[in-house]
Amino acid sequence: MRRGFYIGRFQPYHMGHHLVLEQISREVDEIIVGIGTAQISHTVTDPFTAGERIAMIYGALRELGRWFYIIPLPDINRNAVWVSHVKSMTPPFEVVYSNNPLVVELFTEAGMEVRRPPMYRREVYSGTVIRRLMIEGGDWRHLVPDAVAKVIEEIKGVERLRNISKKDFA
Amino acid sequence: MRRGFYIGRFQPYHMGHHLVLEQISREVDEIIVGIGTAQISHTVTDPFTAGERIAMIYGALRELGRWFYIIPLPDINRNAVWVSHVKSMTPPFEVVYSNNPLVVELFTEAGMEVRRPPMYRREVYSGTVIRRLMIEGGDWRHLVPDAVAKVIEEIKGVERLRNISKKDFA
Amino acid sequence: MRRGFYIGRFQPYHMGHHLVLEQISREVDEIIVGIGTAQISHTVTDPFTAGERIAMIYGALRELGRWFYIIPLPDINRNAVWVSHVKSMTPPFEVVYSNNPLVVELFTEAGMEVRRPPMYRREVYSGTVIRRLMIEGGDWRHLVPDAVAKVIEEIKGVERLRNISKKDFA
Amino acid sequence: MRRGFYIGRFQPYHMGHHLVLEQISREVDEIIVGIGTAQISHTVTDPFTAGERIAMIYGALRELGRWFYIIPLPDINRNAVWVSHVKSMTPPFEVVYSNNPLVVELFTEAGMEVRRPPMYRREVYSGTVIRRLMIEGGDWRHLVPDAVAKVIEEIKGVERLRNISKKDFA
Amino acid sequence: MRRGFYIGRFQPYHMGHHLVLEQISREVDEIIVGIGTAQISHTVTDPFTAGERIAMIYGALRELGRWFYIIPLPDINRNAVWVSHVKSMTPPFEVVYSNNPLVVELFTEAGMEVRRPPMYRREVYSGTVIRRLMIEGGDWRHLVPDAVAKVIEEIKGVERLRNISKKDFA
Amino acid sequence: MRRGFYIGRFQPYHMGHHLVLEQISREVDEIIVGIGTAQISHTVTDPFTAGERIAMIYGALRELGRWFYIIPLPDINRNAVWVSHVKSMTPPFEVVYSNNPLVVELFTEAGMEVRRPPMYRREVYSGTVIRRLMIEGGDWRHLVPDAVAKVIEEIKGVERLRNISKKDFA
Repeated sequence: MRRGFYIGRFQPYHMGHHLVLEQISREVDEIIVGIGTAQISHTVTDPFTAGERIAMIYGALRELGRWFYIIPLPDINRNAVWVSHVKSMTPPFEVVYSNNPLVVELFTEAGMEVRRPPMYRREVYSGTVIRRLMIEGGDWRHLVPDAVAKVIEEIKGVERLRNISKKDFA
Repeated sequence: MRRGFYIGRFQPYHMGHHLVLEQISREVDEIIVGIGTAQISHTVTDPFTAGERIAMIYGALRELGRWFYIIPLPDINRNAVWVSHVKSMTPPFEVVYSNNPLVVELFTEAGMEVRRPPMYRREVYSGTVIRRLMIEGGDWRHLVPDAVAKVIEEIKGVERLRNISKKDFA
Repeated sequence: MRRGFYIGRFQPYHMGHHLVLEQISREVDEIIVGIGTAQISHTVTDPFTAGERIAMIYGALRELGRWFYIIPLPDINRNAVWVSHVKSMTPPFEVVYSNNPLVVELFTEAGMEVRRPPMYRREVYSGTVIRRLMIEGGDWRHLVPDAVAKVIEEIKGVERLRNISKKDFA
Repeated sequence: MRRGFYIGRFQPYHMGHHLVLEQISREVDEIIVGIGTAQISHTVTDPFTAGERIAMIYGALRELGRWFYIIPLPDINRNAVWVSHVKSMTPPFEVVYSNNPLVVELFTEAGMEVRRPPMYRREVYSGTVIRRLMIEGGDWRHLVPDAVAKVIEEIKGVERLRNISKKDFA
Repeated sequence: MRRGFYIGRFQPYHMGHHLVLEQISREVDEIIVGIGTAQISHTVTDPFTAGERIAMIYGALRELGRWFYIIPLPDINRNAVWVSHVKSMTPPFEVVYSNNPLVVELFTEAGMEVRRPPMYRREVYSGTVIRRLMIEGGDWRHLVPDAVAKVIEEIKGVERLRNISKKDFA
Repeated sequence: MRRGFYIGRFQPYHMGHHLVLEQISREVDEIIVGIGTAQISHTVTDPFTAGERIAMIYGALRELGRWFYIIPLPDINRNAVWVSHVKSMTPPFEVVYSNNPLVVELFTEAGMEVRRPPMYRREVYSGTVIRRLMIEGGDWRHLVPDAVAKVIEEIKGVERLRNISKKDFA
């Protein structure tokens, strides 16, 4: 059996992530999805808690009928031990999928196989773009799986993001 | 939909945990399994990493055909914020299952519903008993699900536990 | 009895804070003043220690003849548990006074009553303005209560701020 | 002006602490009361939060008509920097009152004056004794100031302590 | 070139450590001495700061005329990342010398060569024994290198250890 | 005997540092070199681990034939206790050499003697300049001691720095 590891912050989980996971799922038997910066929430760049992101991703992946491990990974803020940190929090895996230069470098220095997944419509399948649309009242729902939009509505995520993006003492 | 939360250290996951989860699975729609003290491993009382424990629990639960969230929870060492910590790392849940007095107290003070699950054969379905059997060469395999025994063998868990339980400078 | 909670960094405590506290003191029986980012000092934006800020605020409030709790609150850097953190460090309170969007959001999500206090002469009653005046040799004393100016002189606060605001290797 | 520093865990604040503070208040102009191990609560030896302990101490001291600084001090777990930690969280003080050997040693190594306060009826004015009486249903109220007993009742402190002192899985 | 790694708490550095390092120095070109639990001091089991221990070890090793790296290693309290932590704080090494079961296990799991150094007169060349002699007024000087005894005297180490080993409120 | 303390991040150690240490070595008997921000590596401004920096500095200083203590100092992120932190990790010293305004202020407030070392060719003997040359393929080797260039080559430091300085998803 062959397991692949894929990491993101998923603020929020969007169609870009989803298409990559569909692609990866054809190459490996099981996928471990690491939720990076798990301890941060309620900021303009990281509005959602780890638990909310887990709910988004489970919802989106459930219909794929595949086996996924979805694991929150708090930052450890010491790059030199980060690979050990990830390995201690996950079942064993053989291949890493990432386009993040630091992730690629750290796993490569650790002697692991790293693959670059394809990227889809980066100009809109982007957390930054989606969060800006949320703040400005644009249409973001078609950029995320339906299950994700549902979670964001239940937790009043757009309202939260708009509130915390206000200027101080406005 | 109704979600239940169940927490343990799972060092290792054993038939006592398994029978409780089967029981809980009849009362709620989805179960969130929190892996406590996730950051600790390679000690006599906590030999296995969070990742190894995730592998054990997924293996055991997969055959039940139910939907489980399995979430590692590092200790935060401040009881007064622990409930918020757990909630931020998990999807929303309505009921807590626990017999641990501190867990019961903290969730009760936070106004949550807490239920006491039944306990099964505590004299052998016990992490303490199983770890001692591992160290002393006794038979522990029948006390855990088969999938768990398989993970422990793959990671050479008994050998690790025996090594670290040796006296210093022995 | 009704207690109100008011939080700031107080770098330094100035007349804007003071006028707000006078206003709040008419609405509640007791006031809890939380000193945010208590662990940071000796930086250009946060020059004073928590202890120095406590001395400033006690000095300024003592003459009001009211009962105040003045409590340093170190950052916890996890917004999702911050309200629990604050509550565990303070006596119980019923109403929060804040114009900070994040503070407002976090207490509102926690189901607490949040009020927006009036703001006074924001163009000068401002920590940023006062620290800049200190660095540039302007007149800042009339912008803070006399007791605060006295503390800052005793600790040689202006000299400290000027020193640490120098360019590296100047 | 002369300030004295007195530190304790105050689990709970009792008549022994109170009599010492009355004594110290005759020797100095102002007293800084440090609440040690401020981050811990809901354990058998440290049941009360820092905020609850602040409420106890303010209540007890308010009737003395003296000026007190009551400051929670989280553990820093590095003895070599602990004196700096305390000094950074408190207004300046000249004399330390303590009978704790480590506190005495650390402040003495730092060149500060340390005095040993008298101790009163240690066999009953003792946090350990009072917590045991609470658990076993004995009479503890006469061992603490009335204001402290009132706070403990409001927060249901005895019930909490009994619950968390139960055996696991009892 | 071949480097060896040797770790201890060195509370204090004694002849047992010294004889082992002399032995190791014949097997490798350079020795890295890791000072474990570097952040702890002023306790009965760990009385000396990392800086004081560095002074002891440098003093003792200087006369050997060999090249040593002496590196304080704060605890990271996560065994699963400890080897990475050590490697990030040290120059590269090829062989580990240790009789500590946990150190042996962690480096062995990481695929490193681990050797068991000989042990000398464990009944007296022992930190526990030496600290007890210091507290009880026995003769400990002949159990440590002269340079170590000199450092301990300069820092008044015996006096410190005796003070902090007193009972509370004695 | 007189010891001097000199601190830097040494990303990497360059001829500017080296010339200063040669200068200081004429004024004191022993030099303690503190490696600041020791816990950070694999970033664009801090590419090298503490262990790699130790290797660089030992290599460069060995040929000077002087006695140096080279001590990694993790950030403590609380300026008010930083001097105590440094002192606890180092043998005693009498004089500090620094041009960094914060270091100067903190040691001055602590009552220590601080000297400003001369600076040499700041326009090229600069970590920022050298790291930029590494990324852009310029000639950086003549700006560092030969032993440092050798370490950087062995660890493939330039390749690492180039990789992590790439844009995300490039």
